[in-house]
Amino acid sequence: MDNKDMLGRAGLVTVEEAGNIFHAGYVVPEPGRETVGITDALRRVLASDVVSTVTLPAFTRSSMDGYAVAAKDTFGATDSMPAYLNLAGEIQMGEEALAPIGKGQAFGISTGGMLPPGADAVVMLEHSERLPDGTLEVHRPVAPGDNIVQQGEDVRQGDVLLTAGHRIRPQDMGALAGIGVTSISVCVRPRVAIINTGNEIVEADKVPMPGQVRDINSYNLAGLVAHAGGLPVQMGIFRDEYTAIRDAVESATEKADVVAITGGSSVGTRDLTARVINDLGPPGVLVHGVSVRPGKPVIIGVAGAKPVFGLPGHPVAVTVSFELFVRPLIKRLSGLVDPLGLSGIPPVRVVRARMARNYSSSPGREDHIRVALELRDGEHWARPILGRSGLITTLVKAHGSVVIPLSVNGLVKGDWVDVELFD
Amino acid sequence: MDNKDMLGRAGLVTVEEAGNIFHAGYVVPEPGRETVGITDALRRVLASDVVSTVTLPAFTRSSMDGYAVAAKDTFGATDSMPAYLNLAGEIQMGEEALAPIGKGQAFGISTGGMLPPGADAVVMLEHSERLPDGTLEVHRPVAPGDNIVQQGEDVRQGDVLLTAGHRIRPQDMGALAGIGVTSISVCVRPRVAIINTGNEIVEADKVPMPGQVRDINSYNLAGLVAHAGGLPVQMGIFRDEYTAIRDAVESATEKADVVAITGGSSVGTRDLTARVINDLGPPGVLVHGVSVRPGKPVIIGVAGAKPVFGLPGHPVAVTVSFELFVRPLIKRLSGLVDPLGLSGIPPVRVVRARMARNYSSSPGREDHIRVALELRDGEHWARPILGRSGLITTLVKAHGSVVIPLSVNGLVKGDWVDVELFD
Repeated sequence: MDNKDMLGRAGLVTVEEAGNIFHAGYVVPEPGRETVGITDALRRVLASDVVSTVTLPAFTRSSMDGYAVAAKDTFGATDSMPAYLNLAGEIQMGEEALAPIGKGQAFGISTGGMLPPGADAVVMLEHSERLPDGTLEVHRPVAPGDNIVQQGEDVRQGDVLLTAGHRIRPQDMGALAGIGVTSISVCVRPRVAIINTGNEIVEADKVPMPGQVRDINSYNLAGLVAHAGGLPVQMGIFRDEYTAIRDAVESATEKADVVAITGGSSVGTRDLTARVINDLGPPGVLVHGVSVRPGKPVIIGVAGAKPVFGLPGHPVAVTVSFELFVRPLIKRLSGLVDPLGLSGIPPVRVVRARMARNYSSSPGREDHIRVALELRDGEHWARPILGRSGLITTLVKAHGSVVIPLSVNGLVKGDWVDVELFD
Repeated sequence: MDNKDMLGRAGLVTVEEAGNIFHAGYVVPEPGRETVGITDALRRVLASDVVSTVTLPAFTRSSMDGYAVAAKDTFGATDSMPAYLNLAGEIQMGEEALAPIGKGQAFGISTGGMLPPGADAVVMLEHSERLPDGTLEVHRPVAPGDNIVQQGEDVRQGDVLLTAGHRIRPQDMGALAGIGVTSISVCVRPRVAIINTGNEIVEADKVPMPGQVRDINSYNLAGLVAHAGGLPVQMGIFRDEYTAIRDAVESATEKADVVAITGGSSVGTRDLTARVINDLGPPGVLVHGVSVRPGKPVIIGVAGAKPVFGLPGHPVAVTVSFELFVRPLIKRLSGLVDPLGLSGIPPVRVVRARMARNYSSSPGREDHIRVALELRDGEHWARPILGRSGLITTLVKAHGSVVIPLSVNGLVKGDWVDVELFD
């Protein structure tokens, strides 16, 4: 392991390098499958292609209110020289149009009505006049195909409507209903086990004794996992002891697809976490430390064939390292296919804003800063929320984050930045 | 009603005018409340302020691994002239630090450990050396407050942690846990009743007879409602008859906060819908027709004190008119407060792309076009999906939509546009 120092700890790598090292050591497996009804399918990822067994529309329909005609009977019609057709009846919605249209005939039809045999166009209501004797005056010619939706114009039998890896949107639910598919095979959502370590941590519903603090990170992480499309699996709070953490991680690798260990910002705990991952490997620890602030002490490894992340214990560092490393993995484990590279677009909303003050950064390190937005004269200004990454309220007070890339030394008041909103 | 014509139909208005007319005739009510556990609170909207009853941290903690000291004992320390302190013990994580620090003393401490009485700073591990005889060499001075988080620095008792109208994010779940709040009062999600009308419509799981089609719009709308944060209430499919629609709308106004009627693209059905809304008013129909394509025949009214939307029956028109009028209303009924105007930022992801072909539009009308994205040499190109708004697959094939404003005549190939992704 070239990137490890003499103590067996991997050296600092960039965010990009960390991703590459991880994917060289871990092959993302095929997700499992389950069947869901389409009304429960929103945002689920298709496990296989959906091929239509029907043609949609099943019959040629009118797309306007008007009169079904044979187009050739209207050729040359104008306001001054209208075509005169014989109104032979009215197409009833939802009923089969059986009577064929005769030479010079028209049938009244509503939007969505079935065209009778022999009709190949619809004259719009606005371009015609019904005379008291039942004759129809047509003031404009129609061409074959005008104002109708042809049989199969929407979907043809055998068409692939949606492909595996696609995430279901509202319109997809509609289209599936339209072709009579009311349940689909989707990818099982990845389960992410959350382990919180620390002798000082107590459950949120307990009253902490002096020296103790309530668990914050498990709840923050559960929210982040759910928001990313995963299923959080709370493993609980464990003491900073080798056996306790090893047992928890071993059990977590059996119950979940990904393991996230939080807590343990102290060197001792980090080394304990790394030892556990190495002992449960191979390959064990792949990355130990990334040049990003906050989040530098992140550990990435594979144990029991499952990715294991040692996330720094400070709440802000937990969030930054989750977004950088765990969220993209959850997306991939979800079965999501992204041929357009759209996952590179921030998953959250972005607002352009101007920096409300200077902010210095060190080159060679990617800085993630929290900002609160302020509206001034219709412009958004981003005010960095100062405060240690141990303060959960720096995240609560912020509306989003700004990334200062490796190569940039800092930002000057008034600079335009992209704020990725916490949505 | 100035904007109605001789037939009692309101004339065409712009999207903005339609919103203004609606809000002049309908006062958004206060949402109801319910209590949820914080693990179920993601994306829920707070019904009341959360005031902390505790101080966080409850005690002054170390934010680094190192040694708790009285800062004055380190003043002037350098590499060549270190300060020498007496190592008096080790602070145990999760335990109260009772023994006060004496003059010239230091205690070993880990990140998160409780500072002993008399200590006011922490010397980082890296800036010190532990000698074999138990003496600590300190190579840099620390100022009071260095490398510690003061009691109450995160939250003070009585602080408003989160305000009513705020939508819960992952970090808020963490912060609530941190102050021991494990359940909160949230706004009840608005219920949106969905009515589909049309003699030709059958349930998605039925085999349609000639002239019949499966219900698409109810499923599309249910997805749109859920995606916007509402609860869809499926009322079913109804025949295009006054009594049937009136009964359905009346029942829907009792069961839900908003009523969306779809189907009925024919003039007859639209007039029926308008009649029902007027008869169940006052005020009845407020807007009948908006200068937008697709979606022009939209009806907006109030009946039985509930907003009722008559959405055009074509699937694409349903989506556009939902996004323009129903989604913003769902947000407001959700109790969401938006002091920064961030709801004006598209709720979906936006990608910059170049038009792959010319597209003409009429001034005086807002055009919403569906586009598919293509990656060419690292740039996204937006190809308009042509096809009638009656085709659900035009929505399925599209990755997002582009809005051409009222004042613009069209777009030229190569023009940059913002594509709002269907997320």
